[in-house]
Amino acid sequence: MSLHILGIDLGGTKVLAAVIDADGNIVSRARAKTQAWRDDEEVFDTIARTGHRAIEKAGVSGSKIAAVGIGAPGPIDFETGYIIEAANLRLKNFPLGPRIAAEFDRPTIVENDVNAGLYGEFKAGAARGASEVLGVFIGTGIGGGLVLNGALYRGFSKGAGEVGHIIVQSGGPRCGCGNRGCFEAVASRTAISRDIRNAIKRPGRSALAKTLTKQNVLLSGKELKAAYDAGNELVRKTVHRAAKSIGIGIGSLLNLLGAEMVVLGGGVIEAFGDDFVERIRRSTQDIAFDVNFRNSRIVRAELGDDAGVIGAAMLARESLSG
Amino acid sequence: MSLHILGIDLGGTKVLAAVIDADGNIVSRARAKTQAWRDDEEVFDTIARTGHRAIEKAGVSGSKIAAVGIGAPGPIDFETGYIIEAANLRLKNFPLGPRIAAEFDRPTIVENDVNAGLYGEFKAGAARGASEVLGVFIGTGIGGGLVLNGALYRGFSKGAGEVGHIIVQSGGPRCGCGNRGCFEAVASRTAISRDIRNAIKRPGRSALAKTLTKQNVLLSGKELKAAYDAGNELVRKTVHRAAKSIGIGIGSLLNLLGAEMVVLGGGVIEAFGDDFVERIRRSTQDIAFDVNFRNSRIVRAELGDDAGVIGAAMLARESLSG
Repeated sequence: MSLHILGIDLGGTKVLAAVIDADGNIVSRARAKTQAWRDDEEVFDTIARTGHRAIEKAGVSGSKIAAVGIGAPGPIDFETGYIIEAANLRLKNFPLGPRIAAEFDRPTIVENDVNAGLYGEFKAGAARGASEVLGVFIGTGIGGGLVLNGALYRGFSKGAGEVGHIIVQSGGPRCGCGNRGCFEAVASRTAISRDIRNAIKRPGRSALAKTLTKQNVLLSGKELKAAYDAGNELVRKTVHRAAKSIGIGIGSLLNLLGAEMVVLGGGVIEAFGDDFVERIRRSTQDIAFDVNFRNSRIVRAELGDDAGVIGAAMLARESLSG
Repeated sequence: MSLHILGIDLGGTKVLAAVIDADGNIVSRARAKTQAWRDDEEVFDTIARTGHRAIEKAGVSGSKIAAVGIGAPGPIDFETGYIIEAANLRLKNFPLGPRIAAEFDRPTIVENDVNAGLYGEFKAGAARGASEVLGVFIGTGIGGGLVLNGALYRGFSKGAGEVGHIIVQSGGPRCGCGNRGCFEAVASRTAISRDIRNAIKRPGRSALAKTLTKQNVLLSGKELKAAYDAGNELVRKTVHRAAKSIGIGIGSLLNLLGAEMVVLGGGVIEAFGDDFVERIRRSTQDIAFDVNFRNSRIVRAELGDDAGVIGAAMLARESLSG
């Protein structure tokens, strides 16, 4: 039996599909945009078509695909493979796992998208070879996941790994989840954008910053980086403060988990690169106990957009033998 | 071969020793105070004598003891059984494990005292039967530990479980560890005492509160509870705020770990009891995602002072078969 696996990564703006070979390499990729979806059937059709296209491009017959793994946003019922809710995709209580299993006639697993991405980095990327891994993905929000004792850790609730929703600044800025002072509310791209916007309401701030925020509720990573590189003081200060906050969150997590490796990914990390990671590292060192800092490595994710499809495929493969 | 185990719990003010039978019951106990210790040899002699006394009281010969487990404060080198440092006990780089092993001529394990206490609750107390357990012990400081997948989790660094040193209020009150806004710095007995002291510097506060703090840097649990029960407004407000902060910390931890059970122990919990725990529960519910709150139970520790000796003994027993 072939060990080719179809991996699918369902995101808010795109769906990626890839066929993964027995060695964990990507044989083929397909992608589609997801903005125009009107209802859940259209979501499903797009996913299915993208999956079939990846299989065609791989040049293997559908019967050579051993299983399907999907990473999807939103809370998932792991027993049934239903997506409980994914607001961006207008999915609610949708039987994604069973539908995909029927469509491809193969065993199918559904995993949360962030866990799938972390698992990809763990099996084939930056965290290869480690066994205690903390994933922190900083973009519009902050997502995360845990690999403990060499396996994805979902906790008793199956809802573990909500790194973005530990409180790091009690009484601080309101988070999308409703709480105040979540890690996500002080250190995500949304938080950086908000802090810049709030600061330029005050008089005497630079015109550049004003321009930057005139039309955007949320600054893109590229916009932020351009203003940062142009020397915009406010942007630089805000970004540096965010790096410090990220280190405070990671230092806290290291004190709790004594992780071997912290994989940093997401749009903010990609935009700001190694200097930013170095600032995060220094702030982490201020917070983490020496034993917990010294035994850990903070590294950047390596697989970019491929992490999710690889991770989902790896989880599907392992479910075959498990 | 007998399955009697000698468990020892070494604390800052006392040492407890107990013989545990094959069913996990305490057969005998011995204890000694530890205030008067001058040097590490005196520490060791006291531990050894207390251990021998527990064995005598158990009415079993020393040869019937299969192993020794010790819970001790301070960072421990788990490879060698050395205590790296325990400031309160004036121990530094002390070969506690090897010395006890030689003294009792039995295999000996050394575990951090908080982990030993959590393990006791896990094997024989409030968390019996659970497999994903978070221990939070609120006293002078906040200690904690993790049982994940049914085993004590020490992390890659062996320094995991430092629940008291996650940052919950960035830029907040200074912690004993040097950081600002640690969980311990906002919600321990030390934090409650400090907040009361600071508040009564302001005019118009009650005479009772002034009396309470006149001679004490740190209010005892009993003193706090007496003032609370007498209706002291400031004390009540401060204690309620602490319960809220404890819930913020626990809610964060549930979002991260999706624990099955949270075991709450320590002097503050013992002094304030069920109403206090109910306040903590409500605050936790505000912070934790529904899936993480609903799947967890927040319970009080059951074993009191016995948790450490039982946990250390259980760990020693398991090390024999491992």
